[in-house]
Amino acid sequence: MTPLQTSAVSVMQRCEELGTVSEEKGRLTRTFASPAMRKANALVGGWMKRAGLKVHVDPAFNLLGRWPCARRSAKTLLLGSHLDTVRDAGKYDGPLGVLVALAAVQLMRARGVSLPFHVEIAGFSDEEGVRYQTTYLGSRALAGTLTRADLARVEEKGIEKARRKRGEFLAYAEVHIEQGPVLEQQKLSVGVVSGIAGQSRLRVEFIGEAGHAGTVPMALRRDALAAAAELVLAVEKCGITATVGQLSVQPGASNVIPGHTALTLDVRDSQDSRRQTAVRDLKAQAQAIARRRRVKMIWSPVQETAAVACDFALTEVLCEAVARHEREVFSLPSGAGHDAAALAAICPVAMLFVRCRRGISHHPAEAVRTGDVAKAIAVLAEFIEKLGARHA
Amino acid sequence: MTPLQTSAVSVMQRCEELGTVSEEKGRLTRTFASPAMRKANALVGGWMKRAGLKVHVDPAFNLLGRWPCARRSAKTLLLGSHLDTVRDAGKYDGPLGVLVALAAVQLMRARGVSLPFHVEIAGFSDEEGVRYQTTYLGSRALAGTLTRADLARVEEKGIEKARRKRGEFLAYAEVHIEQGPVLEQQKLSVGVVSGIAGQSRLRVEFIGEAGHAGTVPMALRRDALAAAAELVLAVEKCGITATVGQLSVQPGASNVIPGHTALTLDVRDSQDSRRQTAVRDLKAQAQAIARRRRVKMIWSPVQETAAVACDFALTEVLCEAVARHEREVFSLPSGAGHDAAALAAICPVAMLFVRCRRGISHHPAEAVRTGDVAKAIAVLAEFIEKLGARHA
Repeated sequence: MTPLQTSAVSVMQRCEELGTVSEEKGRLTRTFASPAMRKANALVGGWMKRAGLKVHVDPAFNLLGRWPCARRSAKTLLLGSHLDTVRDAGKYDGPLGVLVALAAVQLMRARGVSLPFHVEIAGFSDEEGVRYQTTYLGSRALAGTLTRADLARVEEKGIEKARRKRGEFLAYAEVHIEQGPVLEQQKLSVGVVSGIAGQSRLRVEFIGEAGHAGTVPMALRRDALAAAAELVLAVEKCGITATVGQLSVQPGASNVIPGHTALTLDVRDSQDSRRQTAVRDLKAQAQAIARRRRVKMIWSPVQETAAVACDFALTEVLCEAVARHEREVFSLPSGAGHDAAALAAICPVAMLFVRCRRGISHHPAEAVRTGDVAKAIAVLAEFIEKLGARHA
Repeated sequence: MTPLQTSAVSVMQRCEELGTVSEEKGRLTRTFASPAMRKANALVGGWMKRAGLKVHVDPAFNLLGRWPCARRSAKTLLLGSHLDTVRDAGKYDGPLGVLVALAAVQLMRARGVSLPFHVEIAGFSDEEGVRYQTTYLGSRALAGTLTRADLARVEEKGIEKARRKRGEFLAYAEVHIEQGPVLEQQKLSVGVVSGIAGQSRLRVEFIGEAGHAGTVPMALRRDALAAAAELVLAVEKCGITATVGQLSVQPGASNVIPGHTALTLDVRDSQDSRRQTAVRDLKAQAQAIARRRRVKMIWSPVQETAAVACDFALTEVLCEAVARHEREVFSLPSGAGHDAAALAAICPVAMLFVRCRRGISHHPAEAVRTGDVAKAIAVLAEFIEKLGARHA
């Protein structure tokens, strides 16, 4: 085996080992600041130390491993991803990016590469937001973009002290599994992320009139489920990525006409204006459905997140690195959020996606191939060296 | 006030009093063979005795009050409805029919009417089927059509002993609230029931593939909720009375594409062939939806009940009685089931519907007007006298 292959096998083994560090028996769950996370930080921190990095855990529970360069005043290239997980998670969403970064650094150090900037690998503490329903706690603490509301919600005191100096970072680069089926369809191991989609989350209700399923003639009904069904199909045809994931029916008896339905709407796009137009159009359609059916409609925005573009120049360098190792430089947007979105507030960001089996994520069936991991390590090392050459 | 008006006011007061006899605090619930039902039987039985009827409770907990005629070998005209309720019920679904029958008999006896048949008023013990999920326990026990499965399910022993002699009954006539909005729309107090609809109950599932709402492109999705939404709209357009009352979505998270949906389908019609054709057609549509969307569809019939026609000759007499007291003789099918469906197995049946406010039933807001109750009493008494004249 080549050093690269050995390195990829080691990353797979480490993902496996890390996958056993859980706060729940029989399934993988690792939330912000939990004993399982402290154990995971100790385990990965040990691997970082063995690779020669200077390791510490910051006040926001982020694990940080540093490979300093000779010039103390140099900027820092930040690599990494997150070490927290969803409930009943897979082994790769997050940890793969941390361990691929560590593998790339190990290979470069073994080859005696010297860089004109410091390199730091972060294992962020809260990307999924399971514990406090607030995403990116770790990376936003580091970026200094936590809000008062965040701090009020979090039990652990002083996480804002994880904030780093303005201008300290040259860039942030993250490797992550795709969590979707596009690379698999394209038969590619890795792809370059063009940006992280913006997201609108809404709750929509239709209020009609419940009634006896046998005695109210069809023409006199104000069926809240039929109204919701029309909206579900309109959402599917709205032209961008949009999903109704929850739908509840009241009273919910087989012989009672639904009087009330509530549904969630999740709309995402890499272009904020396109997303906003789609949401406005869906609202108009929901209003038209409600009018025609003589039901009441309640449209409640829950959350809106702007799209984050990956840095053009940085992504160019990543594309050049991909071109050296992959048949095709394939670019795709990320529909899911990532720590890179938080880091974009303070430095240029770039992201590399790794193919995952059948696009499955947030599930124990999450799987990646060793060969794809090897390609990701090679691309990331190549990217870092190219970046070094540019800043030499 | 005329004796008829006084009688209607008394029926309303008795419905009110009976509405307080419940097995649950703060809401009306009275199920088969419960202490509340025994109390209700004692209360209504007392009113029957005061009206001069011979009262007993049969082994199936049906309350029976008898007004015998001179000729012992005469047949019996059975009147009545049920005294059990759903959970959190209204005050009129069931009791109104029992008390209107009692009021009509009282008025006729006060006028010295003599009939060529016995009259018996039944307060049936289980039309709603809340306790054992098996409807018409009381009236089927009396009709002798309980199955072994029914008897195995029921804790109370010996209810089959409530069976009455073959050929004992001349006919059964039932007054009941409409539980729908049609009479209100027609501005009529009462209407003649043409028949009790047959019913198909089914469970339909769609099994697609769950996935991340941000990362799975629209074109690659197999969304189980979108499939279900298409069926909901097809059900609404199927041409007969059909309802999707329950719909559940799995996994049911706002950011996850639905992988599984299950829904209930309730299809009713007074013509069995038309209902069966509609169900077959809906199945074909569900199959087509599943094929086109590459999802799996599971079609599970749960229960099928044949339609029951009201007796033509008996209903003619009821129509003549309605013609004397109502602006128009309006005929409508019953989409809901009634004890009359059970009695149809052993004698001709006829039914009179009374308008209820906004069609609301199975709910504390159930309401009827005193004037409509007076009309129902007058029509029922007229019907009984006409029937007496025919059998004199």
